[in-house]
Amino acid sequence: VLSIFKPDESETIRIDAPSLRKLVAAIFERCGVPEDDAALGADVLVTADLRGVDSHGVSNMLRNYVAGYNRGAINPRPNIKVVQERRATATIDCDLGLGVMVAPKAMAMAIAKAKETGIGTVTMRNGNHLGMASYHAMLALEHDMVGMCMTAVGASMLPTFGSEPRLGTNPIAIAAPAGEMHPFVLDIATTVVAGNKLGLVRRLGATIPGNWIADGRGSIISEPGLLPAEYKLLPIGGTREMGSHKGYGLAMVVEIMCSLLAGAEPAGIGDRGRYNHMVAAYDIDAFSSVPEFKARMDQWLRTMEATPPAPGHERVLTPGQLEAEAEVERGAKGIPLHVEVVEWLRGVAQEYAIPVAL
Amino acid sequence: VLSIFKPDESETIRIDAPSLRKLVAAIFERCGVPEDDAALGADVLVTADLRGVDSHGVSNMLRNYVAGYNRGAINPRPNIKVVQERRATATIDCDLGLGVMVAPKAMAMAIAKAKETGIGTVTMRNGNHLGMASYHAMLALEHDMVGMCMTAVGASMLPTFGSEPRLGTNPIAIAAPAGEMHPFVLDIATTVVAGNKLGLVRRLGATIPGNWIADGRGSIISEPGLLPAEYKLLPIGGTREMGSHKGYGLAMVVEIMCSLLAGAEPAGIGDRGRYNHMVAAYDIDAFSSVPEFKARMDQWLRTMEATPPAPGHERVLTPGQLEAEAEVERGAKGIPLHVEVVEWLRGVAQEYAIPVAL
Repeated sequence: VLSIFKPDESETIRIDAPSLRKLVAAIFERCGVPEDDAALGADVLVTADLRGVDSHGVSNMLRNYVAGYNRGAINPRPNIKVVQERRATATIDCDLGLGVMVAPKAMAMAIAKAKETGIGTVTMRNGNHLGMASYHAMLALEHDMVGMCMTAVGASMLPTFGSEPRLGTNPIAIAAPAGEMHPFVLDIATTVVAGNKLGLVRRLGATIPGNWIADGRGSIISEPGLLPAEYKLLPIGGTREMGSHKGYGLAMVVEIMCSLLAGAEPAGIGDRGRYNHMVAAYDIDAFSSVPEFKARMDQWLRTMEATPPAPGHERVLTPGQLEAEAEVERGAKGIPLHVEVVEWLRGVAQEYAIPVAL
Repeated sequence: VLSIFKPDESETIRIDAPSLRKLVAAIFERCGVPEDDAALGADVLVTADLRGVDSHGVSNMLRNYVAGYNRGAINPRPNIKVVQERRATATIDCDLGLGVMVAPKAMAMAIAKAKETGIGTVTMRNGNHLGMASYHAMLALEHDMVGMCMTAVGASMLPTFGSEPRLGTNPIAIAAPAGEMHPFVLDIATTVVAGNKLGLVRRLGATIPGNWIADGRGSIISEPGLLPAEYKLLPIGGTREMGSHKGYGLAMVVEIMCSLLAGAEPAGIGDRGRYNHMVAAYDIDAFSSVPEFKARMDQWLRTMEATPPAPGHERVLTPGQLEAEAEVERGAKGIPLHVEVVEWLRGVAQEYAIPVAL
């Protein structure tokens, strides 16, 4: 089933990243977002597309954001406030601004704090969707730091043994720099499968594996089959025997670090979409030596990728490897967007009188 | 299969925690460990037993530690050195001391740093086994902090698609205080199943579920059956479709935070047992309000535990709940140790002339 998540080339049009970035920035500006934030938001979305993370790129997210601005759920000009601060920490009130643009500012604070004390951690409450979490974690890389980003998002995941969703997909992203090799970049939801991938499964009528989801009553569907009308997401592992209590527990950790630590209600409880976030930066130079760290990362990533594959498999991958490969390919050949998405973008460009040729 | 991990009462003898703590401390002292460290080490092991985490208690670990001291692999009087330090961070060389006693000292440093700057993070290289990781994370609780502990341990886990182990079980523990409710305590290996549980599976001839382990060649065993002679551990999720790349990625994160950040070789690479660790403390008061945090934790844990169970299940649990229940029960009735373990303890007590009646 995983192969369906690769776009079908015959239905896509390749758009070069700079044009797409320009158009997306203009669309954000038409939603009332200031110029700097609009450019930043466009970079977050297009970077996801460049890295092959289509679930968090332009085609999947931009329409939601535009709709959110239009109905007043997202604040285009938030008054971002530091509500509490110490030398290595801060808590920010996002004033319902889009996390896409707030998280990079929080990460800049965390990096500045880490330069001084060794670490910086910034929590963000009262926010909105932050896009691809690894974008924010990766901001630490050029400062020779390890970056981290988590976000607590609504309620879609069942607790192990539960029948009602109490947690979101609550992703965790960690980025660490290497020397010659691609950086280590892990960016994972704490559910077995991301919610928006199941939308694609339904559209294509694909068969899903057993233990991927639960039915409407909360019973785990253990046999492969089509997606039922109603379903609920399961924590990583799927069943208790396969370790779902671990995915469930990690999703709770994300709530603690993003919501409770920031002085906010858990995002998975209550009746509206809420988002709270956390970023952290660890200055490698505070713990050991940067050149040594990078040389070890290079050697280690090469060793991992050279692991003899198990029967039936071609190669062992490391986190961030496929994304780095996609970035090279899509940077050169353009980003494959579904024709229907390109039509929508062209329509919006025309409606908003944005002079851009896709 | 999970039910076999509960001890069979007919084969156990209940030992009260104070007696066990005293005996274990005396055994550590006979291994050359100073009195304070011996008492601390005993507390770590007996706390695991009290909390029902038998895999990391006296019966499973003490013999390994005694053997390690006797063959010189563990240093009973390590010269623990802070090799690098900033206001919120430190890196410690453990001088091959047992992490069981070194990690609490590192956590005390992290807590002191967190009081000042908001967070403290201490990495430890050149170490030995640290026991139940959540013991160290939980040290933060009485300071109204969130605690974290990770440890990178040897090579037993296959990378996703790989045929040779490149990572350890690499556990992650996080503890957060509540008010009236039990604290949140998550303590999870990043493998589907812990290695020492499989020893018990073999002894009892139990059937294991499909996708729990891979065979000697690295092929995942997808059907339930008996444990084969040779096997390899899989990351949380088991198969790629069920999210094993997430467990694999998290195990690599543990290596980065414990080993690479501390300036050490990855513990999963190379030919000998290595251990590197990390602890962190987050001062809740730096981010928001302690009373508010605890009240929210109480309400949230109650809400989670009151989630209507899925068909066929009795109740929804939260991390740390069963352990808190065990602590009450075992604190009152004693710790159930296998008769064979009690015999061994009595033998050691006699051999070392330790005056204790079990």
